Amino acid sequence: MIKRTINRLFIYKNALNHFKKLGFVKVFSDNLADAVGVTPSQVRKDFSAFAISGNRRGGYRVNDLLENINKILGKNKVEEVIVVGSGNIGRALIRYNEGFMKENIKIVAAFDTDSSKADRDNAIPILPFEEMADFIREKGIKVGIIAVPDGAAQHVFEVMANAGIKGVMNFAPIMLKGTPTAVISNVNLALELENIIYYVNAGESAAYL
Amino acid sequence: MIKRTINRLFIYKNALNHFKKLGFVKVFSDNLADAVGVTPSQVRKDFSAFAISGNRRGGYRVNDLLENINKILGKNKVEEVIVVGSGNIGRALIRYNEGFMKENIKIVAAFDTDSSKADRDNAIPILPFEEMADFIREKGIKVGIIAVPDGAAQHVFEVMANAGIKGVMNFAPIMLKGTPTAVISNVNLALELENIIYYVNAGESAAYL
Repeated sequence: MIKRTINRLFIYKNALNHFKKLGFVKVFSDNLADAVGVTPSQVRKDFSAFAISGNRRGGYRVNDLLENINKILGKNKVEEVIVVGSGNIGRALIRYNEGFMKENIKIVAAFDTDSSKADRDNAIPILPFEEMADFIREKGIKVGIIAVPDGAAQHVFEVMANAGIKGVMNFAPIMLKGTPTAVISNVNLALELENIIYYVNAGESAAYL
Repeated sequence: MIKRTINRLFIYKNALNHFKKLGFVKVFSDNLADAVGVTPSQVRKDFSAFAISGNRRGGYRVNDLLENINKILGKNKVEEVIVVGSGNIGRALIRYNEGFMKENIKIVAAFDTDSSKADRDNAIPILPFEEMADFIREKGIKVGIIAVPDGAAQHVFEVMANAGIKGVMNFAPIMLKGTPTAVISNVNLALELENIIYYVNAGESAAYL
């Protein structure tokens, strides 16, 4: 339940940034509920769980709300992350760095086991995999993205975890093993698509998966 | 609950394909449980819900099991999908088509509102957005991927849905509205990373998000 609430806080934050760009000074729980796809009472419940209160009519000042949420989410500092694998997914993530930067996330380096792919002059340098562990230790990197073929993912993960990585977004379609000290989130785009196709063919509708 | 079971069937299928490549002829619920990260009794429960039975000692023949699961999941035919947006994410998806093909999913065309990006000679043609609705109708496409900036996503979605799209994987960080006839799955990579970072900084460990 807490995970879901935290997840919604991130979504509220994105919606609030959007409202702010549109010039909103105040929002109501209804606005946020609409934007996020929950009920207004859920919005108020989520906020009151973190002692964020609105005015009597359920209104919140956009700036105050954003500041509160960012504080809860620890979004005040830039988080440096690394990517392992410079194939299609790895390169797409590197190119997407601008999008991550908006959320105070910065990809600082990529690594590839194929050292011929190394490119130290790139804005985000692509380095040989052998340099990864030292890099993680020296820079105190805590979060990494695995975008290598499934056969290599477990080994990559172990080297990462041994060097001090505590959180992993894993694009390889396998379950990583032996993870007592790391938070792992699997992203499997083919599986996601298969699910959608299944529900479409089963005649489902009006569902957010 | 049914959604979770279906989702696990897809994961079992991936694990089984992996086992098959490794030369396995039979698997036990323990093997699948290990690979998928659930308990062996969950595996047996999932299969018995679809009247798939193993032998007395919980063993299953890999080929039989795969055939059964593929039948349930309707994976016997290739599903043609389209991508809208040929920016970083769109192009990464196109390049990843090989990976999708393994799952009988084929990206047949991409569309871009910027018609200067059109490239009809590409293996997967990139076409002007104005041609999308006719393309969807003529080819009977049911599933599309939205990889456009957030400001364009709602409009793109409406044109898609009006032309007959029933399922959407949405990479734009907004909630799509007015969706009585479509299945939608949101993929927000920045949000995913933010979540991981939050739990890492909160000192969580050993968790699959």
